[in-house]
Amino acid sequence: MKLEYIYCEFAKEQDSHFIWSLRNDSYARKMSKNKGYINLKTHNIWFKQKINDKKYNFVIIFYKGEKVGYARFDVSIQDQVTYVSINILDKYRNKGIGTDGLSKAIELIIQNRRDICKKFIAEVREENTVSKKLFDSLGFRLKKSMNSIDRYELLYSERNKLPSLLVDIKEGIIDLGWGHPSAHLHPTEFIKEGTNQLFDRNDHIPLQYGAAQGFGPFLNSLAVFLSSQSSYYSQISPNNLFLTAGASQGIDLSCTLFTKSGDTVIVEEPTYFVVEKIFRDHGLQIVGVPIDENGIKVSELKKILTKGLRPKFIYTIPTYQNPTGICMSVERRNQLIELSEEFDFLILADEVYQLIYFNNLPPPPFMSLNHHGRVISFGSFSKILAPGLRTGWIHSSSDKISKFSDSAVTFSGGGFNHFAATLIREVIDLGLLEKNIDIIRNEYIRRCDVMNVALSKYFGDSISYSIPSGGYYYWLDFKSGFNTEIFLPHAEKAGVSYRPGKIFSESGKFENFLRLAYTLYEPDQLEEGVSRLYTAYRNFGKS
Amino acid sequence: MKLEYIYCEFAKEQDSHFIWSLRNDSYARKMSKNKGYINLKTHNIWFKQKINDKKYNFVIIFYKGEKVGYARFDVSIQDQVTYVSINILDKYRNKGIGTDGLSKAIELIIQNRRDICKKFIAEVREENTVSKKLFDSLGFRLKKSMNSIDRYELLYSERNKLPSLLVDIKEGIIDLGWGHPSAHLHPTEFIKEGTNQLFDRNDHIPLQYGAAQGFGPFLNSLAVFLSSQSSYYSQISPNNLFLTAGASQGIDLSCTLFTKSGDTVIVEEPTYFVVEKIFRDHGLQIVGVPIDENGIKVSELKKILTKGLRPKFIYTIPTYQNPTGICMSVERRNQLIELSEEFDFLILADEVYQLIYFNNLPPPPFMSLNHHGRVISFGSFSKILAPGLRTGWIHSSSDKISKFSDSAVTFSGGGFNHFAATLIREVIDLGLLEKNIDIIRNEYIRRCDVMNVALSKYFGDSISYSIPSGGYYYWLDFKSGFNTEIFLPHAEKAGVSYRPGKIFSESGKFENFLRLAYTLYEPDQLEEGVSRLYTAYRNFGKS
Repeated sequence: MKLEYIYCEFAKEQDSHFIWSLRNDSYARKMSKNKGYINLKTHNIWFKQKINDKKYNFVIIFYKGEKVGYARFDVSIQDQVTYVSINILDKYRNKGIGTDGLSKAIELIIQNRRDICKKFIAEVREENTVSKKLFDSLGFRLKKSMNSIDRYELLYSERNKLPSLLVDIKEGIIDLGWGHPSAHLHPTEFIKEGTNQLFDRNDHIPLQYGAAQGFGPFLNSLAVFLSSQSSYYSQISPNNLFLTAGASQGIDLSCTLFTKSGDTVIVEEPTYFVVEKIFRDHGLQIVGVPIDENGIKVSELKKILTKGLRPKFIYTIPTYQNPTGICMSVERRNQLIELSEEFDFLILADEVYQLIYFNNLPPPPFMSLNHHGRVISFGSFSKILAPGLRTGWIHSSSDKISKFSDSAVTFSGGGFNHFAATLIREVIDLGLLEKNIDIIRNEYIRRCDVMNVALSKYFGDSISYSIPSGGYYYWLDFKSGFNTEIFLPHAEKAGVSYRPGKIFSESGKFENFLRLAYTLYEPDQLEEGVSRLYTAYRNFGKS
Repeated sequence: MKLEYIYCEFAKEQDSHFIWSLRNDSYARKMSKNKGYINLKTHNIWFKQKINDKKYNFVIIFYKGEKVGYARFDVSIQDQVTYVSINILDKYRNKGIGTDGLSKAIELIIQNRRDICKKFIAEVREENTVSKKLFDSLGFRLKKSMNSIDRYELLYSERNKLPSLLVDIKEGIIDLGWGHPSAHLHPTEFIKEGTNQLFDRNDHIPLQYGAAQGFGPFLNSLAVFLSSQSSYYSQISPNNLFLTAGASQGIDLSCTLFTKSGDTVIVEEPTYFVVEKIFRDHGLQIVGVPIDENGIKVSELKKILTKGLRPKFIYTIPTYQNPTGICMSVERRNQLIELSEEFDFLILADEVYQLIYFNNLPPPPFMSLNHHGRVISFGSFSKILAPGLRTGWIHSSSDKISKFSDSAVTFSGGGFNHFAATLIREVIDLGLLEKNIDIIRNEYIRRCDVMNVALSKYFGDSISYSIPSGGYYYWLDFKSGFNTEIFLPHAEKAGVSYRPGKIFSESGKFENFLRLAYTLYEPDQLEEGVSRLYTAYRNFGKS
């Protein structure tokens, strides 16, 4: 289907008359070097010659199906530049159509005239403020003024483009730092199927304000789905679920509702660095408590509580922890709940990896234990379906669920991501969520294994780590004395990147650790990434 | 397409063997009154007879296409009740399948056997904890225990169902209180077109983590669109836009990033009550400043600032204010910006009605004025496309946009509502957003007019109000001494509702005002609603 709004096409011979009329537009004449009227016959001859010459390119700009202007690209082989100009019908000026039109015309040229000079030059008269603003907003930069002509230059690669996606990887680098799911695994077909089923219902429900707690049928389907999953261990009622716009949004909302600036919260050390920043954005004081292979050291926590610290909550990633991959033992989980009762704090359990287990089941989630109403658990479709949907859930006791549902931001907008929730409900009911989890779980098992084989092949005993039993990450211990922050630029020079251990720590520890994710890249790239990491490591040791 | 997950069908004769095997299941036998083995021949005769008798209804429950159990509904004409039982294959028990299956079986029965008794009774043996839990979670309530049989009762209308939508209107009431767009006007077809175009691209972009500032092509299309709208008055660069999950989410995020608990903020009096509650959820102190027909009284604001009050920001709805419908004059807007410079505070401008103007353009939005980088403006697709999409934008200076983009909750999840943004971008590019705004604008003009005619026909001079020139609301002044809070139950008895003036006030003013919305209902219902309001009013005067 063709875009009805603004689009571009290369000019054809029959566009001659349209271009002629624009060339004779009074403003165009005024702004041109040659100010005289152009005869149609002369123009037709000139135009026919130009469009058959590769050095000249005319692009027609359409707005809502109508021709509203054209852009012209003249290649100067000698100067190795492309001269750009644009001409828009009077009544369409100053509406941003020229800017968008020229932007699209440049794309068209770049994609279809591969050998064009990608240094674009626009020569504009000083008094032509309209065009100057236009080129400026497209990222053209003023280079020199001469004879009242302003000269704007733009290198194509410098174009001021807004990014589409969050992931931002330097060219040539295998960035094992991003804890993102593999784009190739995104279930576009499943989402299409769900969308079809949703639209087959032919009602307006997906477009209205959703219920504050979340779209009821979605909560029902999610409850049935989670209850059927072995790694959830128990029956889940939809009354205990609340729709979120992802785990981070749920954590952010919890900060708003359960803390005030200056309050103290506990985190594991190390922990997911971005969540720490969410706490800081809320003005919270953060205290870290160390973890070992069984999760947070509850005895250490008890010590600081006994000394008088009164946190509002503890934030934990109990299963396949980020960054360490560790699972908190059931015993520690129960001890933590006991402490939360004794010292009156909440447990924010970030359990987004609960379904990403490999060969064995993870320990039971906090809500399946005897939780005394102290637990707020966060789940997310980012890890099991698609992050772009920005949808997750909170599982908690009904008094907490009411607090979330009654919050003003929830009530004002209705349930978070209602539309996505109506869609995901179909995906669940079609059995496609389960199918998708099977696919990604198997793929991650494979990738995790590939990374392990590569790590042990290259690094041998020079580093130590545990093989993850689920989740996204390897947490590598480069012997004490090694500094992964200092090492980072050397690794990037060798074409690989990672997250240094220090960023996961409140107190600047773990400088000899680094985190690798095996989810984003294909197996052969993982192997290559580890190989490059080793090359950098070996050379780093020598330098 | 058939649901692959859990669905129900009425049993057919060929299901006899399946039901027989389940009747003889050891657990079923143990929990039944009749504990003996059932002969297949006897069963077949019995079953054939039952399914041809309208008083007996067997429903097969499917899970992923397989028969996993059945529910039985026996109608007792004498007792006017329906006895319910359920039987699930052993390996599917305790997974929530029974709960969901029975829930769907009840729906099937209700929809197809219209004359069935809607009082459902389940008789369960005391020791049958599985079934007891199941009936409990479906909203059945224990009535009496006798002979070790627990008797659960459920009236169909009492079913503990989670709501789908936010709007919650008592039966028989025309609720003119909800400031929601009309469901009938939701552009489902446009959304389908956009979705098709999105899926035609056949890439994974909509499912990945979106850029923190928002999906680039969406920001570009939005900038072009807004720049082309007369009511926006100026060119808008995508660099000054930030994708939100609706205006409320943007306001909530602004509180997180620009205030801390205990800070003071200014609101108009009256103002949108839910936003006040967002501020309270952030622990902010709220000070109200009165408005007149030209918007907030800047002179009053200046007085309290001069006395020493130091607010972090002022929250204003400058155009078609909620609830009054008033537009702040350009002069006041400029004065407000000057004050914000002098006393160092931000202006949070909730400009979600900027495109819902009727016959004349509204005043220019704050960002088109000389705003000194003091303005954060909120826009929303809830008012111009569909609230269920939960998508909006912030328009602000680039330092503020960076602050939003760099916030931890944004970075952790990527751009807010990325998937919806990729979809809305298509809707914009197809020209369908513009089309939709034309449709709703014309319809609201009509509805606003109908309400005006009805108000003046029924109430004449007994109330006073201004006719809105855009937006959603009438703000009716019932003479001083009248209390719209006390009047509310009387109005609801007459079958109409509204929002009393007092809820829009920090200091409990406006008790003689009320707010009506003309967006949710069709014209004839608006007329009927106003007529009912008048009936209640006339009788209220007399009682």
